[in-house]
Amino acid sequence: MTTDITLIGQGQTKFGELWSKSIRDLMEEATDAAISSSPCTALDIDLIIVSNMLAEVTSGQAHLAAIASALLPHHPPAIRVESACGSGAFALHTACAMLESGRAKNVLVIGVEKMTDVSVDTVASALMGAADSEQERPAGLTFPGIFGLIAQRYMHEYGLTRDDLSLVSAVHHRNACKNPFAQFRSEISPDAVTKSSMISDPLRLLDCSPISDGAAAVILSSEHSSPIRIAASQIASDSLSIVARPTLTSFSATKDAAERALQEAEIKLQDINVLETHDCFSIAAVINLEDLGFCDPGEGIQVYKNLFEGKPTGFGVNMSGGLKGCGHPVAATGIKQLIDVAKNLQATNQRYGLAHNFGGAAATCGVHILEHSPSS
Amino acid sequence: MTTDITLIGQGQTKFGELWSKSIRDLMEEATDAAISSSPCTALDIDLIIVSNMLAEVTSGQAHLAAIASALLPHHPPAIRVESACGSGAFALHTACAMLESGRAKNVLVIGVEKMTDVSVDTVASALMGAADSEQERPAGLTFPGIFGLIAQRYMHEYGLTRDDLSLVSAVHHRNACKNPFAQFRSEISPDAVTKSSMISDPLRLLDCSPISDGAAAVILSSEHSSPIRIAASQIASDSLSIVARPTLTSFSATKDAAERALQEAEIKLQDINVLETHDCFSIAAVINLEDLGFCDPGEGIQVYKNLFEGKPTGFGVNMSGGLKGCGHPVAATGIKQLIDVAKNLQATNQRYGLAHNFGGAAATCGVHILEHSPSS
Repeated sequence: MTTDITLIGQGQTKFGELWSKSIRDLMEEATDAAISSSPCTALDIDLIIVSNMLAEVTSGQAHLAAIASALLPHHPPAIRVESACGSGAFALHTACAMLESGRAKNVLVIGVEKMTDVSVDTVASALMGAADSEQERPAGLTFPGIFGLIAQRYMHEYGLTRDDLSLVSAVHHRNACKNPFAQFRSEISPDAVTKSSMISDPLRLLDCSPISDGAAAVILSSEHSSPIRIAASQIASDSLSIVARPTLTSFSATKDAAERALQEAEIKLQDINVLETHDCFSIAAVINLEDLGFCDPGEGIQVYKNLFEGKPTGFGVNMSGGLKGCGHPVAATGIKQLIDVAKNLQATNQRYGLAHNFGGAAATCGVHILEHSPSS
Repeated sequence: MTTDITLIGQGQTKFGELWSKSIRDLMEEATDAAISSSPCTALDIDLIIVSNMLAEVTSGQAHLAAIASALLPHHPPAIRVESACGSGAFALHTACAMLESGRAKNVLVIGVEKMTDVSVDTVASALMGAADSEQERPAGLTFPGIFGLIAQRYMHEYGLTRDDLSLVSAVHHRNACKNPFAQFRSEISPDAVTKSSMISDPLRLLDCSPISDGAAAVILSSEHSSPIRIAASQIASDSLSIVARPTLTSFSATKDAAERALQEAEIKLQDINVLETHDCFSIAAVINLEDLGFCDPGEGIQVYKNLFEGKPTGFGVNMSGGLKGCGHPVAATGIKQLIDVAKNLQATNQRYGLAHNFGGAAATCGVHILEHSPSS
């Protein structure tokens, strides 16, 4: 980073089926919480970045920058950024660049999604906007379909079993029990995952992150000190369609963003104490650990076996509950991850955390590294 | 600007009803033209900013950053920015900040919109996403309706007549005749405007910019020299709903962005030689001249009278044909404006030009000032 950027405020709504709250309500609740937790007043916010994917389709509402701006009395400039389910990380990255450019000193970044007010068909179709509308949608694919293909191939290549895969959601649900903002605060057994309804073979209902409403907001600053700073912010791209890729069992955008983030933070992977990864489906959680470099290809499930059995792994994974446990209001997720990584570093008094957020089948990916310095 | 940012490449598709071209095709055509006109190869592009408003609804396609990235062989990082019809200016602003931050040296900015493949009802509803879905859409308003109300009020306050208003589109069409990329290369008389079909009293069909497909792309650089540099890039916000504003006949976001842009460029309004303004409706063109400061409130139409009669105004206005003459593929417009201002400055060997692009009823607005230095 060319500028010291600190995390000085954070807030979020509960994630879940929030039928009584509009997009504006959700943004306002997260924004109020973020500002209240910061050393700023609303008037200190000189720029807003809004992360949203679906509002055009699910709420008939584009132009969220104008709604966000009007939440604050002085109507600061605001920009909306979208990169499907990775929108949050891309908004954070844009905010970092704005601070580094000197154009802003205190940037409010709001991620928001309202998904439960429309039919499942409508939201599933809208989410397919994150895939290739020329190559994947006409083939009848949905995202459970795409990740089902990925899981099939992964099982073929590495011998992953259905029962082993079920450990992933069991771990995430267990972690979510401790998170007051999580959509699902209930333990589930691996057996319950294996026996849940078939969605897209081999993926079952409890392998899939849910449809959720929610918002999360952070304030990033180049002006105020904080125990948490952004040590790295990197984004990367891959082909949109999985058809154009050399492999289904690894995501190059994750690898690219993570490699550059570690370089930017000037640390090694072993320095990371805690991470939040983009577990939109259980199979993604396994692949993410491999692509980030925490284990070799085919070995991701071993980390979840250790986590499930309470054995040491050397790093915490999705301690918030991840997308499966917390819920996945898609464009809010990347912001929520940053909040959860920061909370965890402070609670455990550890130093480095990583947030990994991708869009579609990792056609775009953003990785952020946080550094916690208790002394500052 | 904290960094010298130059315009080193530009390209666009023809604007119009381009039924045989997909979003990807349009982006590719504009990108190829921009790169070909620049000192760069594709591999020199280290970041892409995509400006798009409507693809989720009109093409079932979000996540355009991934499509844009895959247009280039090395899949550079890419971000999609949306601010309704002002998306182009907001993408340019984001690109400037990325260059100033040092995170990129050569940024490709692509604006694209595909509007003619769906029914007029669908596209009119999608465009209403730029207005307030809680306050304006339920009232039955469309954008012609909103600007019809604005025109009614303006006529009441300033005595503008229907026949005078018709001069605006006549001037824009005359200018468009000289633009090979324009959708409408035909002169229209003021009388034809006055007698065209009623859309939303007092606005007639020929007061309204059309539904269009098209793409435009520029390359902004902190590495390469060029006769054209970005002297200012500013964005501003107002309330989304017109209900929440103190006046209907002036747009505060235009005033804010323009005032700050002049400060940033360290010039006076009188230094501007040519401008492209956001004439989504004829009445907007009149108000824009007043809000930008080129005349007093109520006097905007006098500029168009002078333009129509070939009298000197001291500055050129929408020499490209504006949104009415060129067509208005909404998120491409702000990029196209920058190209047209640059072309005009070079063709006339003048120094300063201004591009004014807004979203919705100017709930968001971006203003860019270009400086042309023939010697560099």
